[in-house]
Amino acid sequence: APGFRVRGVFNPAATRFGEEILLLLRVAEDCEAGANEVAVPIARFENGVGRPDILRLSRRDPEVDLSDSRYVVYRGRTHLSTLSHLRLARSRDGARFTVDERPFIFPSDSTESFGAEDARITQIDGVFYINYTCVSPDSWATALVSTRDFKTVERHGIIFPPQNKDVCLFPEKINGHYCALHRPHNSGFGRPSIWYAESPDLVHWGNHQCLVRPRDNGWEDERIGGGAPCLKTPEGWLQIYHGAGADASYRLFTLLLDSTCPARVLKRASRPLLEPEADYEAKGFFGRVVFTDGVVPFDDGRVWIYYGAADQTTCLAETSVDELLDSLDTP
Amino acid sequence: APGFRVRGVFNPAATRFGEEILLLLRVAEDCEAGANEVAVPIARFENGVGRPDILRLSRRDPEVDLSDSRYVVYRGRTHLSTLSHLRLARSRDGARFTVDERPFIFPSDSTESFGAEDARITQIDGVFYINYTCVSPDSWATALVSTRDFKTVERHGIIFPPQNKDVCLFPEKINGHYCALHRPHNSGFGRPSIWYAESPDLVHWGNHQCLVRPRDNGWEDERIGGGAPCLKTPEGWLQIYHGAGADASYRLFTLLLDSTCPARVLKRASRPLLEPEADYEAKGFFGRVVFTDGVVPFDDGRVWIYYGAADQTTCLAETSVDELLDSLDTP
Repeated sequence: APGFRVRGVFNPAATRFGEEILLLLRVAEDCEAGANEVAVPIARFENGVGRPDILRLSRRDPEVDLSDSRYVVYRGRTHLSTLSHLRLARSRDGARFTVDERPFIFPSDSTESFGAEDARITQIDGVFYINYTCVSPDSWATALVSTRDFKTVERHGIIFPPQNKDVCLFPEKINGHYCALHRPHNSGFGRPSIWYAESPDLVHWGNHQCLVRPRDNGWEDERIGGGAPCLKTPEGWLQIYHGAGADASYRLFTLLLDSTCPARVLKRASRPLLEPEADYEAKGFFGRVVFTDGVVPFDDGRVWIYYGAADQTTCLAETSVDELLDSLDTP
Repeated sequence: APGFRVRGVFNPAATRFGEEILLLLRVAEDCEAGANEVAVPIARFENGVGRPDILRLSRRDPEVDLSDSRYVVYRGRTHLSTLSHLRLARSRDGARFTVDERPFIFPSDSTESFGAEDARITQIDGVFYINYTCVSPDSWATALVSTRDFKTVERHGIIFPPQNKDVCLFPEKINGHYCALHRPHNSGFGRPSIWYAESPDLVHWGNHQCLVRPRDNGWEDERIGGGAPCLKTPEGWLQIYHGAGADASYRLFTLLLDSTCPARVLKRASRPLLEPEADYEAKGFFGRVVFTDGVVPFDDGRVWIYYGAADQTTCLAETSVDELLDSLDTP
């Protein structure tokens, strides 16, 4: 859109679809601004169609707070400095991608006026369920849509109300329930932790339980949250989650949940699986971040981890189910 | 329990049961402490049974923050200065109550170690559903139990994960769904508002929508939240909710929702229905608060509003369906 520019393409969902690997990329755009101006990108809606728009503020206004690059706080209300939408990229080899010409999911109602972010794709019984973070003046929450063809989507509304993100669906029913990991905010009480929930239909959720809390290890002091949808392994459900440390770095960790009772934690890694080391991970729009929303397993045991670096770029790391299971050294 | 003393009996749920009116009172207790000591009441659990316990801190510890009478913040973690449980009181006339000898709901697992607060009772198809706020180091959330006889309860777990309270169930299915109002926290984004959700079974919830936001009227600047379960009236579902103003006072307001589509707001009162004026409302454990969790309608149109005053005492006000509907002056 006029006046908008891409600031980052990162934190993709990943899935196989036919002969291809698809990524659903978070495309974050900000706005060109004059020297003394702050231009906040937002979505406005008419008749159910969203279009990009710009809220212009003065940099000299004492009520404008730009201390965190991700936010514009104006009169105590938080806006985002970028507006994200979700766009598909398609590849035969999983490395060279062709990005679609148009957004796949662009903010479409007032629950998404500050953007759609950080999708996860989970294939369940032939349907691809896509959950993502919807952000608005009413805060951030998790919405669910589904597709069979990656052309049209069916919307299922907000499945986890504010403030909740980092939702990972399980790819099959377990003991008669659909299952999910989710991450409620809990300002002032404890630290943001990974919760578990169950559903009869993927739309309505209950039986919420706090599953995994941050450890005092320097790497998880601020918060933890689910990453990619869990991988099924012979030893249990393997989850690659992120932790944010007191040093404001985001790292990836492994966690193993019981095959038949995923609310039961079996093992956890004592050390990070991946941490920001390369230049493109250490520096960027929001530096010192590696963050995954999507992994792709292969028949030979290899696992590709697609991840966002520094809230700016999309990267690929290769590991294997064996290596991931070996990392789980803590009961 | 030894060392514990009652600081308040307030914010009751209310229902008819047989020939009686029952209140489910929030009983808040704190602990006797030495001159330089802070004694924080908590619940500990062994084999599924909770018992009261005391965490002792030094008043001189610079990491102890007592600036809000409701909280003890220690090393950045929030504890409550009181431990609440829920206790039944029974009455033939609705005014003179006999309080049970023992708690009806005492914290019973780690999700309730900081207390069980602010119950609402909703009779649906002959079963009494009781939702209440459970508080723990993992934050505050809303739990659901049910009973048929007010002797035994069946637990249904956490139905709205952190941070969520002020949940009001509707007394019947509407368009094939159970419905609820709930109040997520949304620190930094907007102001805490009343949301709507639907459920197939009262346990799993979805289709979350932000329904009513605080107005800039001086009375709702901080937050609003649901009060008693909605009353069915000829004109729609009548909700008595609370608002907290910039002056830190809690007042009651009326709201009317569509009979067949309760996610549709029909009317709202421009002025408070009840505000703290009497001495026992203005002064107390946390002053300038009126807060309702339970109303009882009569066949002749009268409505009794049971409400907590100043987070300390339980009061009764009488109004009528006609008066409540007349208060709704804003489209």
